[in-house]
Amino acid sequence: MISVVILGAGNVATHLFKAFNKTDEVSVIQWYNRNLDTIKPFKNLVEITNDLNALKEADVYILAVSDDVIGELSSKLPFENRLVVHTSGGVGVYELDKKHKRGVLYPLQTFSKNAEIDFANVPICIETIDKKSYPLLKQLARSLGSPTKRVNSDQRRVLHAAAVFVNNFTNQLYRIGHEITESEGAEFDLLKPLILETAKKVQDMSPYMAQTGPAKRNDKKTIKKHVKLLKKQEHKDIYNLLTDSIKQTHGRKKL
Amino acid sequence: MISVVILGAGNVATHLFKAFNKTDEVSVIQWYNRNLDTIKPFKNLVEITNDLNALKEADVYILAVSDDVIGELSSKLPFENRLVVHTSGGVGVYELDKKHKRGVLYPLQTFSKNAEIDFANVPICIETIDKKSYPLLKQLARSLGSPTKRVNSDQRRVLHAAAVFVNNFTNQLYRIGHEITESEGAEFDLLKPLILETAKKVQDMSPYMAQTGPAKRNDKKTIKKHVKLLKKQEHKDIYNLLTDSIKQTHGRKKL
Repeated sequence: MISVVILGAGNVATHLFKAFNKTDEVSVIQWYNRNLDTIKPFKNLVEITNDLNALKEADVYILAVSDDVIGELSSKLPFENRLVVHTSGGVGVYELDKKHKRGVLYPLQTFSKNAEIDFANVPICIETIDKKSYPLLKQLARSLGSPTKRVNSDQRRVLHAAAVFVNNFTNQLYRIGHEITESEGAEFDLLKPLILETAKKVQDMSPYMAQTGPAKRNDKKTIKKHVKLLKKQEHKDIYNLLTDSIKQTHGRKKL
Repeated sequence: MISVVILGAGNVATHLFKAFNKTDEVSVIQWYNRNLDTIKPFKNLVEITNDLNALKEADVYILAVSDDVIGELSSKLPFENRLVVHTSGGVGVYELDKKHKRGVLYPLQTFSKNAEIDFANVPICIETIDKKSYPLLKQLARSLGSPTKRVNSDQRRVLHAAAVFVNNFTNQLYRIGHEITESEGAEFDLLKPLILETAKKVQDMSPYMAQTGPAKRNDKKTIKKHVKLLKKQEHKDIYNLLTDSIKQTHGRKKL
């Protein structure tokens, strides 16, 4: 049985708590948050605290807090030489205080407050400084049913940036699709199967091979029609920039 | 039984033929293509021809050809007053020769040469000029198991442009994710569950509500880190433009 203390109360902390709470291999023995109110709803399931000096001894301390406070919080922990990990994509492992055994458990997925998460669909990127801590973190991730991968801090930073492209930016393209269809009284719902198919396609095929459309074909007539039809300059700019990007990827010259 | 003649031999034509060929409600009585070689593999399943003067009488003629030749091909058809439809998102219904009863069957999905398509996931946008033709086209689409929607030419053009955003541009963001991860020896595969989850999320939630990430939070530190880490100017430009777009959508000021 691996004993865990969770620190923080955001989406990642909450989803991790709920998932660990379901497994037999892991026991969350304590949940810390500066503001106790946020985690009070869980007080019948786990011991909660807002006092760092009251933290119990555990196999792993998981700092699921915002990037800015990871270093500071790790320094404030009133013990040393125990395994302390953070869950951030953008923060290096060395930003944790060196008095600890240090590691990272970065779950590469989008977490919403209310949506249920199946950790089988959450790859967990693991980094440790000392080799001995690695098997424990791997076992921890596996207990959730997650696939795991050893990833160093540089790779994790790049995955985090790439995640912004494929998640936040992609979602913004959905948003633009929503805006321009609704403005013409057309239904965004009609685009939903296409959105899903586009994501499914690259599960088995490289995005390079999966590309289609006017930019790849260099179909100037259609491109011109689309740019003309878009009303917002912002949408025109995005259309032009991504069209050029596709042309460059597929060996077409810029307009 | 609805009798159909298909004209053209691209992805849409081929997928439509295969799908109609499976239903009992539709009979494809002839398949026309200028270049007979392309459709020869199907000659045991359907009569093929490259001669417009040999076209048989049918309930519907489906012009699944490239946008540029739709008007011209419709004019060349050696008959009139029959129902002739095209399948293009970007071409108006009036570009078909007015000697015909005119309509559009626009399947809103991405078609690949080899990937199987389940038409239950292909919304078909229908437009007709005369009201009488509408039920027949609806029946035709329904025979494939497709959801249908009446959509006028303006709405269809906007859906077509929106499809470029949510399909081609989104796929290019996947491509950039692929490029930047592989350049650092990280695995694109780790992003695949995130890609799928991002697409699934907007099936039940608006893209506006689904948004997360540094741009929405206006997390300047992370944004700066990401832009610095990107090596290609093109990627930096796309990062900045889409970050600004998200900020505008969510009421944040431009950098």
